[in-house]
Amino acid sequence: MQQFFTVGPSQLHPQYELFWQESYRNQVGSISHRSQQFRDIYRFTEEQLRILLSLTPEHRVYFTPSATEIWERMLLNVVENTSFHLVNGAFSKRFYEFSGLLGKQNLCYEVPQGQGFDDVAQIEIPSSVELICTTQNETSSGIQIPTEDLILLKDRHPQSLICTDIVSSAPYAAVNFEKMDMAFFSVQKAFGLPPGLGVWIVNDASLKKAAHLKQKGILQGAHHTLESFEKNHLNWETPSTPNVMAIDVLGKMAAYMNRMGIDQIRKDTEVKFEMLKHFEASHPGVRYTTNHVAHLSRTVCVWTCEKNPKDILEKMKARQYLLAGGYGVGKAEQIRIANFPSSTVQDMEKMLQCLSEVIS
Amino acid sequence: MQQFFTVGPSQLHPQYELFWQESYRNQVGSISHRSQQFRDIYRFTEEQLRILLSLTPEHRVYFTPSATEIWERMLLNVVENTSFHLVNGAFSKRFYEFSGLLGKQNLCYEVPQGQGFDDVAQIEIPSSVELICTTQNETSSGIQIPTEDLILLKDRHPQSLICTDIVSSAPYAAVNFEKMDMAFFSVQKAFGLPPGLGVWIVNDASLKKAAHLKQKGILQGAHHTLESFEKNHLNWETPSTPNVMAIDVLGKMAAYMNRMGIDQIRKDTEVKFEMLKHFEASHPGVRYTTNHVAHLSRTVCVWTCEKNPKDILEKMKARQYLLAGGYGVGKAEQIRIANFPSSTVQDMEKMLQCLSEVIS
Repeated sequence: MQQFFTVGPSQLHPQYELFWQESYRNQVGSISHRSQQFRDIYRFTEEQLRILLSLTPEHRVYFTPSATEIWERMLLNVVENTSFHLVNGAFSKRFYEFSGLLGKQNLCYEVPQGQGFDDVAQIEIPSSVELICTTQNETSSGIQIPTEDLILLKDRHPQSLICTDIVSSAPYAAVNFEKMDMAFFSVQKAFGLPPGLGVWIVNDASLKKAAHLKQKGILQGAHHTLESFEKNHLNWETPSTPNVMAIDVLGKMAAYMNRMGIDQIRKDTEVKFEMLKHFEASHPGVRYTTNHVAHLSRTVCVWTCEKNPKDILEKMKARQYLLAGGYGVGKAEQIRIANFPSSTVQDMEKMLQCLSEVIS
Repeated sequence: MQQFFTVGPSQLHPQYELFWQESYRNQVGSISHRSQQFRDIYRFTEEQLRILLSLTPEHRVYFTPSATEIWERMLLNVVENTSFHLVNGAFSKRFYEFSGLLGKQNLCYEVPQGQGFDDVAQIEIPSSVELICTTQNETSSGIQIPTEDLILLKDRHPQSLICTDIVSSAPYAAVNFEKMDMAFFSVQKAFGLPPGLGVWIVNDASLKKAAHLKQKGILQGAHHTLESFEKNHLNWETPSTPNVMAIDVLGKMAAYMNRMGIDQIRKDTEVKFEMLKHFEASHPGVRYTTNHVAHLSRTVCVWTCEKNPKDILEKMKARQYLLAGGYGVGKAEQIRIANFPSSTVQDMEKMLQCLSEVIS
């Protein structure tokens, strides 16, 4: 069996098969999304995510098929004219481009690939901006935005909605939801589930803005509007038939993580992050792209390689370890390594031993 | 174990668990949608669907998370101004409404709930219409449009694109793809798989129209545009991470159905349809909504009940059989029964015996 240290889709969590079997035995693949059985599943999954991610009582959880779709739905639903994007990699850039494709004015502040934001307080964001789009954890560059910086952004721009992409950092990322209007992730990253489900976390202010745009007659799309999500959510239902088994399995996974405790998950992640840092410090063949430790993603490690990364990836694959190649501008010279809960400290240790042999 | 004769989500196919296990063992839940393993899966699934549904060489298969999303993407991508909708139930009506929500001029020809189109040649469709939207099989009303009528529509309106909703009739429906620009379905109906995947079948003319609209600067959305689907399809990839395991399992299911043969699947469906017809003829407590046998869906049976349908559904449920209630205007007085390949002739026989006891 291959072991996936790719950054998503990634290694399936050891518990996944069991949770799937339970869901299958309960015939969840056959139930209606207007049945009581589904409503109970939706409510349970939201409750478990609320605990795991420390959501506020007003944040709702909506389900989409992917985080990519959430980019589009969010821009369509809460932005009439202008969005502002903190671009720290290829995915935040794509989010920015989506806004343009949807006919909005999209402003951005971009840092060079592999760098973080030195001082978010210095970023000039016009007061007319309706939505500030941040990517807390950039899967392409391995750069994160520290929690305090996200809080600072909201404090300085209370008139704008703010959202953050935690696709590859949830549940590790300690987002302060008192200062975050929306966030989103997909389950094939740190939750260790197969792809096919996105999670969109939305507060009252965002719904209010969406309702305002609707009233003004702004085109918000026909499918998966915030209005349709909220109307159905009141009854623990969804606008159309969702990936029901995935919602059920996500609920079980979040409950499992809650039993383990988010503190333990964070501690394990940090232990593995230290192992990665130590590896980098002791192997001149790989280098982080920045010296600012605060800017380094804890869950997605990106290294520039002295040798040809393609070679490294192939040799690791021959040893049954799948790492990810670089993305976008980093494609030719970088490797990426996931630090997700599906891999234990021991898994990481063994993989790094192997990598040490390969790059030496 | 309950047996689902609901019209979708419905009974999972007896082969589903095996196919899922195979996919899981092959670690398909972890692979990248830019990997060779994924490309092979995509190509295989398309090939099997091409055989099963008798697609022409020019029709491509794109994957979305749901058929509902396809309604929206299709209207956004190939309709600049005007769509025309043949409305024969709640879902075709919703498709029609989507067009209005997207700011298009949406024209329609509507028949009363439970009736079919007597003479499609008489339906006046302006030559300015860009897309004629039909619902070959209406899951809400149990009404179908015969294949010949769909051909007639295209022959009379060659200047318009035509699409058809085969959500709850594929693969049974013998659509003539020489005369059909686009079609779509989801896998939780007659394919007997859990929800989470839609299939969009698209020909050259549709892509050409989409490219024309793109060139004119018409807003087509940012995610899942026809352009992005086609660009990725050239390399057997998808615009963003799809429900990879579902695509893999669908390919295995289509291959299984091809081994059985579409003729056999159609024959079995028709045997069970005759059983349903015989049941109706011999039980005055249930009645089809029309005497036109050609208008009766072969895969979704809808009956108006003399007695309270809620009572019937509850009594059947107590006997481990789940039937569907009526939908929309038929909610208070109808029941719906799926005639999908997941249930054998024997399954249908036993269920009808039980139903006979319940309504007598």
